[in-house]
Amino acid sequence: MSKSPGEFHLIERLLKRLGPGRRAILGPGDDCAILPPARARQLLTIDSMVEDVHFKLAWGTPEALGARALTVNLSDIAAMGGKPTVCVVNLAVRDGLGLRFFDRMYEGLRKAAARAEVEVVGGNITRAGALAITIALLGEVRGAALRRDSARPGDTIYVTGTLGDAAAGLRILSGRLRILSGRLRARAAARKFLVSRFLQPTARLKAGLALARIKPAPSAVDLSDGLWQDLGHILERSGAGAEIDAGALPLSAAYRATIGDDPALALGGGEDYELLFCLRHAVAAPALTRRLGVRVSRIGRITSSGTAVLLDERGSVRGGAPPLHGWDQLRSRLSG
Amino acid sequence: MSKSPGEFHLIERLLKRLGPGRRAILGPGDDCAILPPARARQLLTIDSMVEDVHFKLAWGTPEALGARALTVNLSDIAAMGGKPTVCVVNLAVRDGLGLRFFDRMYEGLRKAAARAEVEVVGGNITRAGALAITIALLGEVRGAALRRDSARPGDTIYVTGTLGDAAAGLRILSGRLRILSGRLRARAAARKFLVSRFLQPTARLKAGLALARIKPAPSAVDLSDGLWQDLGHILERSGAGAEIDAGALPLSAAYRATIGDDPALALGGGEDYELLFCLRHAVAAPALTRRLGVRVSRIGRITSSGTAVLLDERGSVRGGAPPLHGWDQLRSRLSG
Repeated sequence: MSKSPGEFHLIERLLKRLGPGRRAILGPGDDCAILPPARARQLLTIDSMVEDVHFKLAWGTPEALGARALTVNLSDIAAMGGKPTVCVVNLAVRDGLGLRFFDRMYEGLRKAAARAEVEVVGGNITRAGALAITIALLGEVRGAALRRDSARPGDTIYVTGTLGDAAAGLRILSGRLRILSGRLRARAAARKFLVSRFLQPTARLKAGLALARIKPAPSAVDLSDGLWQDLGHILERSGAGAEIDAGALPLSAAYRATIGDDPALALGGGEDYELLFCLRHAVAAPALTRRLGVRVSRIGRITSSGTAVLLDERGSVRGGAPPLHGWDQLRSRLSG
Repeated sequence: MSKSPGEFHLIERLLKRLGPGRRAILGPGDDCAILPPARARQLLTIDSMVEDVHFKLAWGTPEALGARALTVNLSDIAAMGGKPTVCVVNLAVRDGLGLRFFDRMYEGLRKAAARAEVEVVGGNITRAGALAITIALLGEVRGAALRRDSARPGDTIYVTGTLGDAAAGLRILSGRLRILSGRLRARAAARKFLVSRFLQPTARLKAGLALARIKPAPSAVDLSDGLWQDLGHILERSGAGAEIDAGALPLSAAYRATIGDDPALALGGGEDYELLFCLRHAVAAPALTRRLGVRVSRIGRITSSGTAVLLDERGSVRGGAPPLHGWDQLRSRLSG
């Protein structure tokens, strides 16, 4: 694809920032990157962040934006129990953004890549009406991969971290927190935590690698679309159902301080980038927490029913479970 | 990233169309695709086509659009002397495009992938203000890769196919042919040929593989940004200069019938997706044409001068060589 002088300038700046790497035989600057042969099975994923769809520039720093574009891809590798290796970046740039912005964005991306031991081996820059960052990420998996289609009735369901924080953070950023919450003023520290969980999510790479050492390999998915929807992916691919204990959903103190005890955002809110996984042989949550290096909560079990139900504290089916695709509907109300 | 019900529906349709493949252990539908270990060195590239930047929907069929999005990536693999293997597709969809459109676009992509023996192993769909198709493509290279940095003074420069046809086709589509040409009415067949060279380019995969068998490995680049600009990439990376014989530039009969003998579009016009390559030991063009399976023309030589010059028929430096980045400036006039 053709480039303008400004686009070439951007590419050259990117090349200089990235420097030579160890994983690639030939990095950015040619028609393709050249990678050494891969001894392990490989993972490949692609994900995109589009301005005014997934983010607004006013919400955070360029550095956080660059890091987040990689993190959403790292999370896909984590959910397969893999280790990320190299990526290529497609940047769609619009008018009105200066070199300083892109320098800072690249710096965030570079640091996130370094933390995850990922090398940016190539890229492409194009013009567009809105800023968009699309990253394709390769990884490798040495044990059994964590697949969506391997959950079986009787499996115990767990999640890492806490749920709904990113969705609450997005509501704060959008100025729409009041829609869900009667508590009009949350404490500043709680709000800051929730916003940071949206702007600076963590991919659970170490947890994914630890899960891949468990036999039989757990079924797993990352929580990008929201617990209910992503659980639905596992149930659909595995041909199973699930019971989720509403009272067991891990809510952060900041979530409770801001949203209250209503688990709607924890069930339907997306972009936490935590892992949901299913174990054939149940393990106590504290032991898993130690093994995975991140808080783990046991939230339910896989059934043969074919659908997901939400149980209240007495084990009765509780109303108010969000429909599938709940997060996007919530988000449309935010951004619409 | 979160999805709307419509986006999920699109993904499901895509999955059904693509079906199970042989190259992937696990194809679309999980967090990542799983690929078998790679014995050969791998190639990785990413490229993007954005509505109203690279194409207008009114210009061609959805099938051609889907095929072209893959072809521009295949061309990068061809330019390295590699064989493409698998790809992932990020589709940014805007309002106002129906399922029928995407079905047809996928069909074009699927057929182009099948022709190139490429498997679509995963994808992602997001909303955006404009339609954009971004593809990351993996390939493998068994011999020496064709790099941009290996041209040496004395090398002979060749190109495949004819030059400037796609740029002329874009001018016809944009209704701006008259800017360059005094010939206001080109014959319908010639116009049709030029337009098809823009809408339905061919990646020179077989030629690239044949070039990779030549020793020492030729330096090569694909002509996406225009001959002058892409030659510049080789010169910059190789630290060399070049002399190009204006009279040797291969112009199609349709180009001559429409544009005349002015080589400006052949020098500066992009998106032909032909290959430019440099041989240490010169070979007659007819012999190369047979070996590569596509017309090959000898157009000049690499020098130690550090710059590129255009020579007229008497070997004198000719004015009128486009500046670097010429194509994009031309195109800005088209679309601006």
